[in-house]
Order: sequence, then C-alpha cells, then structure tokens
Amino acid sequence: AQMALERDYETQREYDTRYRVLSEATRDAFVFVGTKSGRVIDANPAACALLGVARSDLIGNAVAQEFDGRRRAEFVEALNLRAMDETAGPLEAEARRTRTPVRIMPTAFRAAGEPLILCRIDPVEAAAAGGNEMT
Amino acid sequence: AQMALERDYETQREYDTRYRVLSEATRDAFVFVGTKSGRVIDANPAACALLGVARSDLIGNAVAQEFDGRRRAEFVEALNLRAMDETAGPLEAEARRTRTPVRIMPTAFRAAGEPLILCRIDPVEAAAAGGNEMT
Repeated sequence: AQMALERDYETQREYDTRYRVLSEATRDAFVFVGTKSGRVIDANPAACALLGVARSDLIGNAVAQEFDGRRRAEFVEALNLRAMDETAGPLEAEARRTRTPVRIMPTAFRAAGEPLILCRIDPVEAAAAGGNEMT
Repeated sequence: AQMALERDYETQREYDTRYRVLSEATRDAFVFVGTKSGRVIDANPAACALLGVARSDLIGNAVAQEFDGRRRAEFVEALNLRAMDETAGPLEAEARRTRTPVRIMPTAFRAAGEPLILCRIDPVEAAAAGGNEMT
C-alpha cells in the first residue's frame, strides 16, 4: 500500500507541474477563488497583469476587493450563481487597480473536497476587437 | 511519514483537478508532448477542435502526424530547438485534418523526471485578427 501511494504521489506531482506550466502559458487571465472564503487561492501571470497586482499580493485577498462597485458577499454570490447556470452571461465588473472593464466567466468545481470557483477574466476591449464568443 | 505522505497526496490531488478545470476553461489550444517519444500525452478541448480529432484518438499518437509537411523526428527536434531558445519564433505548420494554418509555441519542462513539451497552437487567421478564438 505504501508503494502504491508513492507511485500515485509521483503521478500527482506531475499534475502539479503541468498545472503550473499551463497556467503560465495560457493567454487568458485566470483566478482560483475559495467559494466559502471568497479569497484568491491562485492567479496566473495574465491575471496579475490584468488586475495590476503581484501574485504574492493577490493570493489570500478577498477577490471582491480587486473589483469596483461590488460588495464582497454579493460578489462571490453572483459568481456562484453564474457558475451554476450555464445560460447566465458573464459578470461585468471593473478591475479596481487598472480601471479595466472586464467580463468574468466563473466555473464551479471541487478539489480535494473544497468548493472552488475558477474565474476567467476577459478585458472587454480585447473581447470586442477579437470578435470572439462572448455576447 | 505515512501521515505526511497522505496529506501531500491530498494536496497533489487538488492540482490534478485544477489542471483539468484550467485546461478545459482556457480558449488557447494546448497539447502536451513527450520529448523522447514525440507522442501526445494530453490535449485540451480547444486543441481537439483545432486539430479536428477526438481526445481519445489524439492521445498516444505521434504529434507530427497531426501536421503536414514535417517528418516526425524533424518535427519534435524543431519543437525542442524553439522551446530552448526564447528568441526563436513560433513553428509554422498546417493542421492535417482541418487544413488550418497554425503557429506552435513550445515550452520545455520536466514533470516527475520526464522531459515534456507544452505546445500552444494558435490558428493563424485568429492571431492576425487579434483574437484567440477559433470557429
């Protein structure tokens, strides 16, 4: 059983590395948020650039404080509602530090038992110029 | 030690899930390739759509056979050379099944000791238009 656990551990360590490399290589901005706490668990470089904050300063913060015009509890509740409802549109907000209008696309999931929300954050002008799928 | 290993195992299982959710949520097309074998280890839905192949049919295939005009050994070597050299441009190719001109941006890394290449595959027309969405 010990051997099997160690073998699994090796496999899982590979996902850890793949996760990191993928989050750095994607051009989309992503933030992982704890559903209960509303706090940022991880953010990729594209998200840090879009929000105008260092990763170390972002992790642990309430995600709501990175956006204007939304109270903390209401913000996380709005993310959750949209994450549950596939027909709901993105959440419109403004990145507080960079004053960038954004659209937030949340996905709810569970990792190691804890409910999390993955937020893809798209700057509005890039979406308009790219003519992509958001409407 | 057993307890610590199990605790680590829980943490690592979380990265497994985060990896999967992130790879599905990103609009960029990504393929993981084994450096030695040249075979596809994983691909996200955006990559499957761009290459016109089901994930289950793609995994295990030589990555070179998804692109035209490149021999297998030469293709993986070209990916490797670009992955090592940050000043090198992307690799130009054509997706064989969908006849889509693409640019491949490789990143070399090691996971659990095995050398891997992460390839971001951008369709050329979308890149020119300034967006990154296909269809």
